[in-house]
Amino acid sequence: MTAPAHVAVVQVAPRLLDLDANVKLTVSAVETARERGADIIVLPELSLSGYMFETIDEVRSCAVTATHPVFARWAQALAGSPGLVVGGFVERSGADLHISAALVSAAGVQAVYRKTHLWNREKRFFTAGVDAPPIVDTCFGRVGVLICYDLEFPEMARSLAIRGADLIAVPTNWALDARPYGDEPPQVMLARAAARTNHVYVACADRSGRERGQEFTGGSAVIDTAGWVLERPDAQGFAIAPLSLSTARERQISRVNHVFDDRRPELYTGVFEALGTV
Amino acid sequence: MTAPAHVAVVQVAPRLLDLDANVKLTVSAVETARERGADIIVLPELSLSGYMFETIDEVRSCAVTATHPVFARWAQALAGSPGLVVGGFVERSGADLHISAALVSAAGVQAVYRKTHLWNREKRFFTAGVDAPPIVDTCFGRVGVLICYDLEFPEMARSLAIRGADLIAVPTNWALDARPYGDEPPQVMLARAAARTNHVYVACADRSGRERGQEFTGGSAVIDTAGWVLERPDAQGFAIAPLSLSTARERQISRVNHVFDDRRPELYTGVFEALGTV
Repeated sequence: MTAPAHVAVVQVAPRLLDLDANVKLTVSAVETARERGADIIVLPELSLSGYMFETIDEVRSCAVTATHPVFARWAQALAGSPGLVVGGFVERSGADLHISAALVSAAGVQAVYRKTHLWNREKRFFTAGVDAPPIVDTCFGRVGVLICYDLEFPEMARSLAIRGADLIAVPTNWALDARPYGDEPPQVMLARAAARTNHVYVACADRSGRERGQEFTGGSAVIDTAGWVLERPDAQGFAIAPLSLSTARERQISRVNHVFDDRRPELYTGVFEALGTV
Repeated sequence: MTAPAHVAVVQVAPRLLDLDANVKLTVSAVETARERGADIIVLPELSLSGYMFETIDEVRSCAVTATHPVFARWAQALAGSPGLVVGGFVERSGADLHISAALVSAAGVQAVYRKTHLWNREKRFFTAGVDAPPIVDTCFGRVGVLICYDLEFPEMARSLAIRGADLIAVPTNWALDARPYGDEPPQVMLARAAARTNHVYVACADRSGRERGQEFTGGSAVIDTAGWVLERPDAQGFAIAPLSLSTARERQISRVNHVFDDRRPELYTGVFEALGTV
């Protein structure tokens, strides 16, 4: 069994197009999470830029690479800890712009994921990633990552869990939807289903606030392997839960049932392939 | 657009091991649903037998084939309607016993599905089906079927929706679980996620009551393509909702987003295949 980790999601409202302010905001958030005992700290999608871009120049004005000093500052805030910060940013790569998440340890950037499923206007400005999400090994367990709309594709959490992730960190910016028949944000319901069907922990860091008329959901949640929300953000935007991440690997859910071994790929893999060629 | 269908789930408590009583119970349930305007009527899993078997002889005592008169009586109750009854039963096939669901029109049995994912003690008595679930075309839309634990595998609803199902009928027997962090049964949460991620209607007919100390959830629900529960059972166990099933096919969820076309099979199909060979 791995060491228990305090997993924190931090729900903040970045300031639109103000990279300097957001560097300070996220460094401060990581420092505070550390003071509160967090080992693994998840920040929202696009936490260094905000979301409601209107022009490509606006996007470029906030775009950075993994060598930007902000990541060294996240690493510095982790000094002496074997933990991880997972946070979203606009990544510049040649002429391309990506919605990315950096996975940063005290030693620096361990991996960068480029969002592979782009929602709506994101397609105007951003290029979808071509690589499957990375998994970073820590002494607490293995941390995978998805970003926002990725979670609407059950295949993504499924494949991360199959590949060995114990915890899926989800930087997200959930635009507020109407909820005619219930109170729970539908995106949280999907995150819970991803957790339960894969027996994996899920930590979603949503953002709060409003930008250019768009309100965000503030639906951050730390979710256990049965799909229950263990923690939601407090008044300061922090949700912190102690998790023994390696328990995600105990997928024998009855004497004769195993979450993965009970799958019947021969019944559906062909259907997925056929669609892939359409 | 297809004709609007009134989709009913009927939550009843079969009498354990009493085939005759359960024939009457289900025929009466279908008749009442028809009187209340239902076109497509979903009955629970194992609605002709109950669930808590202790011996193989008990299972055999309730096992029937698709030629059993009960299905003709369901068909008769549909006379003059282009609708469908989907209901669960123990199917005998040579020496094998299956947890099956019949899809019955006024003209008789259109298809039988044998549950492909068996939960816990079911493995003692039953043989898992080897065929993917059928889809039956009606003037209201295309009706696919899953049974209970099948729904815990997101691939199943995904592949039914990709193959063209507008509505997934789910006969189920959900054993009552503890709900330490919420009120909604986790199985309903998974059904809602299946509906939302695939933009498909889902109608779950759970059972009520208790057998040999096992309490059931009574979690029946008619769920729309956004994953919201439209109807839960009334005091008589009926939940009936009018649905335009072919609207499930409108999977363009923004100007540039499509539920299926946005998938990235190249990122995960290989992972599924690799697991299949383990």
